Amino acid sequence: MEIIRSNFKINLPKVYQAIEEADFFAIDGEFSGISDGPSVTALTSGFDTPEERYQKLKKHSMDFLLFQFGLCAFKYDHANSKHVTKSFNFYVFPKPFSRSSPDVKFVCQSSSIDFLASQGFDFNKVFCSGIPYLNQEEERQLREQFDEKRSQANGAGALTKCPVTIPEDQKKFIDQVIEKIEGFLQREEKRTLELNPCTGFQRKLIYQTLSWKYPKGIHVETLETDKKERHIVISKVDEEERKRREQEKYAKEQEELNDAVGFSRVIHAIANSGKLVVGHNMLLDVMHTIHQFYCPLPVDLNEFKEMTTCVFPRLLDTKLMASTQPFKDIINNTSLAELEKRLKETPFDPPKVESAEGFPSYDTASEQLHEAGYDAYITGLCFISMANYLGSLLSPPKTCVSARSKLIEPFFNKLFLMRVMDIPYLNLEGPDLQPKRDHVLHVTFPKEWKTSDLYQLFSAFGNIQISWIDDTSAFVSLSQPEQVQIAVNTSKYAESYRIQTYAEYVGKKQESKQVKRKWTEDSWKEVDRKRPHVPGPCYHTNSFTAAGIVGKRTLSPDPREAGVVDRESEGISDPELEQTDYCADPLPEGRKKAKKLKRMKKEFSLAGSASDSPAVLFEVPDTW
Amino acid sequence: MEIIRSNFKINLPKVYQAIEEADFFAIDGEFSGISDGPSVTALTSGFDTPEERYQKLKKHSMDFLLFQFGLCAFKYDHANSKHVTKSFNFYVFPKPFSRSSPDVKFVCQSSSIDFLASQGFDFNKVFCSGIPYLNQEEERQLREQFDEKRSQANGAGALTKCPVTIPEDQKKFIDQVIEKIEGFLQREEKRTLELNPCTGFQRKLIYQTLSWKYPKGIHVETLETDKKERHIVISKVDEEERKRREQEKYAKEQEELNDAVGFSRVIHAIANSGKLVVGHNMLLDVMHTIHQFYCPLPVDLNEFKEMTTCVFPRLLDTKLMASTQPFKDIINNTSLAELEKRLKETPFDPPKVESAEGFPSYDTASEQLHEAGYDAYITGLCFISMANYLGSLLSPPKTCVSARSKLIEPFFNKLFLMRVMDIPYLNLEGPDLQPKRDHVLHVTFPKEWKTSDLYQLFSAFGNIQISWIDDTSAFVSLSQPEQVQIAVNTSKYAESYRIQTYAEYVGKKQESKQVKRKWTEDSWKEVDRKRPHVPGPCYHTNSFTAAGIVGKRTLSPDPREAGVVDRESEGISDPELEQTDYCADPLPEGRKKAKKLKRMKKEFSLAGSASDSPAVLFEVPDTW
Repeated sequence: MEIIRSNFKINLPKVYQAIEEADFFAIDGEFSGISDGPSVTALTSGFDTPEERYQKLKKHSMDFLLFQFGLCAFKYDHANSKHVTKSFNFYVFPKPFSRSSPDVKFVCQSSSIDFLASQGFDFNKVFCSGIPYLNQEEERQLREQFDEKRSQANGAGALTKCPVTIPEDQKKFIDQVIEKIEGFLQREEKRTLELNPCTGFQRKLIYQTLSWKYPKGIHVETLETDKKERHIVISKVDEEERKRREQEKYAKEQEELNDAVGFSRVIHAIANSGKLVVGHNMLLDVMHTIHQFYCPLPVDLNEFKEMTTCVFPRLLDTKLMASTQPFKDIINNTSLAELEKRLKETPFDPPKVESAEGFPSYDTASEQLHEAGYDAYITGLCFISMANYLGSLLSPPKTCVSARSKLIEPFFNKLFLMRVMDIPYLNLEGPDLQPKRDHVLHVTFPKEWKTSDLYQLFSAFGNIQISWIDDTSAFVSLSQPEQVQIAVNTSKYAESYRIQTYAEYVGKKQESKQVKRKWTEDSWKEVDRKRPHVPGPCYHTNSFTAAGIVGKRTLSPDPREAGVVDRESEGISDPELEQTDYCADPLPEGRKKAKKLKRMKKEFSLAGSASDSPAVLFEVPDTW
Repeated sequence: MEIIRSNFKINLPKVYQAIEEADFFAIDGEFSGISDGPSVTALTSGFDTPEERYQKLKKHSMDFLLFQFGLCAFKYDHANSKHVTKSFNFYVFPKPFSRSSPDVKFVCQSSSIDFLASQGFDFNKVFCSGIPYLNQEEERQLREQFDEKRSQANGAGALTKCPVTIPEDQKKFIDQVIEKIEGFLQREEKRTLELNPCTGFQRKLIYQTLSWKYPKGIHVETLETDKKERHIVISKVDEEERKRREQEKYAKEQEELNDAVGFSRVIHAIANSGKLVVGHNMLLDVMHTIHQFYCPLPVDLNEFKEMTTCVFPRLLDTKLMASTQPFKDIINNTSLAELEKRLKETPFDPPKVESAEGFPSYDTASEQLHEAGYDAYITGLCFISMANYLGSLLSPPKTCVSARSKLIEPFFNKLFLMRVMDIPYLNLEGPDLQPKRDHVLHVTFPKEWKTSDLYQLFSAFGNIQISWIDDTSAFVSLSQPEQVQIAVNTSKYAESYRIQTYAEYVGKKQESKQVKRKWTEDSWKEVDRKRPHVPGPCYHTNSFTAAGIVGKRTLSPDPREAGVVDRESEGISDPELEQTDYCADPLPEGRKKAKKLKRMKKEFSLAGSASDSPAVLFEVPDTW
């Protein structure tokens, strides 16, 4: 169901009802841009720490606008053993509510806009008919403004307890107004007096003067003429009438306030439900949602984690789930479209799903990818298929796994970290995994160097993997940790370049925290130009120090899970990345397809992978 | 005529012809935002120097996108005594041309977007069908890329004169390729060899290796399969065939390059024509046009002036013209829409205008304001009416004044400065006017102060005018320069505020150039909240020091002109400003209409104004 400014209010009860009834939700957002560097590749390094990644996304992505929000509510119909969906596609836009409301500026990235345009995205619906919204601070300010205005009109303000200071040049004007009102009060037959249109400053002076001079017996209000000129109307009223009018006005103001808060009310309802919210590769969706509808993101990652679990107590990322055992071995491509297709085939079982009455249904056969409502819908389907698959591995098997099942709890509140080689997810419920990185070198070199120079430098070490940091440094991971010291030693007398271990690099960085990396636009461009279109062969890394993960709400995930989710380092061959890349790159090269083909040729042993699966996923009792 | 991506190429000859034939052009741009502060009011001060104003516009406005460009070419048909117009409305968008082309980020201001939406602006046409463009540096880079690729393919590159360094992990791959080619070269019957799809890096290695190993006799090219996979095709060719193929490829590349330069070609053609370009309140249009289609704006205002006169040797701003004698006294409201209406009435004579064959005509009766093509069209009409009016004042009167007439030269290359109280225009051809400002005070005060506090402070001085700088300082202009010293003296022992003369303020500012004003987003908000919705009464200021203005191309304007163009200080009541304000402010207050009405009631004596006119405008010979 498409929701825009004009049908938002009338459909809001339907949205609330869907949220009320649902077992879980799937969400998806479309943005006006992805990354404020020249490309996502340049912005992110394969050896970012979660803290670094958060800072980069916060700095380079939050100025974009989330302008389409997809919400799909799933409810299980036990009687008919099927899921009933209510899918909404909201267009949102920060239309200024009044002269005093914030005039939001947002950034558009031409590659993202061009990509959405190629998908048939309707920008007019966003800009002409988008639902407005306010974050919590803006809502508070608007509420205060209304309160202040009301207290001014009521004469309850402190200012109006004593005579008002009238600027010299306004004295004559105010005197004339008082003279008029005195005359009006003496003529019993006249019930109302309309003053001439005047300026906002003059109206304020009139309000203040009248509430001091005539605290009772008159009602003062500002009306607009047909010509949109504002003028003050004064009426003689008894106390009862005055109260009735004020209540009426108050109700009207409340409605205006609600209209201004607009789409944020939907997000608040989702958050307040405390129900499971599913998304695919959802870190940016979550960051944007909080940033846009709650408050600017905190500086510190831990504060962000706290804030996020506070707003959305249960999040599940289907991309992380699909990249984790027991799915990792049987799911080849975790991009949303490919995942959805894969989960229709054995050993998976596509769920029985039907759209609720009065809701249009999506047809997964004719894809409508990158419409947020559709993406949310298929994200939900993916979640159900994977959850049910976990049930099928139990003995006895369980055909339908609920959103409240303990089976899926190990996946809660872990958000997929795109293109980080050895940290699969951001852990919202505690410290993040800390991979050893004892096979990683930090190399600095002259800015003329290209990838081929690095390959040549390390040609004696066999397979290496390069992860650029900026135009004069990169991480190079070797296949054996033992080679690291050899590389460092042989470089001791080199003049043009410098090699240190990852540990040394991190130590020095923490020493001089002031020295910030220079991520200027120019250096991005430099990095991008140098970066070859294909990375070296990926080295499969597996060296985790299982950091203590303390779950606040759910079971602590088994430490073995760290091993479980060690993905084949998907740095560049990640299919989700390909999708994003396509967006920045209208001329994709053959390499991607070639890699995909190569992978598809691999054969997977289902039984084998299942037996490799960690016990934690299958031994916990199912709450259903 | 509406021009979008799909019909740009086919219509470009028509555009070129219109530019070739025209007597003059009128232009107009629509932008994704106006000012990167919370409001234009907060961004600009009534006592900005031209240098300050330029810096503010450059800093706060150039991140917006010029996404619709209106061009109307006017040609006089002597035989039929009428103007023939060709009007174009171009939608432009920086669609990335390839993976290596710039991924432009631009800012949208929600109030501006909302304003355009309310005018029926079609955003889909911009984002889905906008014509791409490159600035001169981007064009140069793309040209270089093509040259480099060609020299690589030709084997002309220095790199290929010696064996290529092949990274260790690519050696096997390259060896296999060479083996294949050796086999192919030995089999006479085979004319072409298709290699398997491979990565861009591998293709580069193949190109380099082959141009070194087989400098003659084969032609190497990259083709795309149906699946968009890129692969190399090798053909046996004799020298003639090889050259033919290369020329073909070169022609194709030139076309691709032209497509990428796109809309910039139109701007280059306008610039190269050297003809008069007319705009209404055109400073931002000119700045955006140069910034987007030529190069980033220079830091220094004088450099900007040089650059601008170099690109557009003759500019004329109809808002400045309408605000200058002999028009000032008979034109009440200089907003484009109002000006166009006014110039249909006596003493003006609406020009005879017809759209050229095959060009749709605009009807000024049913306004299409804020479509750039329409705005350009009526800007041109306004120019013609005003130019002809100047002719009518000659004896004997001249009914039709040409765009090359000396009558209009005094208006050349002076761009209207919005809301600067005492400097009417930016002079592109020399130093700017330097008003004395000996009646102006600079006041600093606690950040709690509001406008009313300032009024109260100066209540003894009669009419004052306040111009906020930031939340702790403002300019206050008094009605008499003699009062200035009194105000400074009385403030000597004040603790909470400080008053200095404008001259003192400027002196100190120049002393400590490092101390820059803090124009943070927050301080904007602060200023905006405090600013009352209505300013105090405007004080009419008239104190110029006529600075030496040295024209480079045209006659030096008579120094008396400085007196001529002293506008009633239009700081806030300026109608053009109301238009902009409306854009930032969906709830305009009655004050504007009230002011307008008041002004419209004034009666003007036409004869009187004509006799007040400066001689320079009417005594120079007309070149027609």
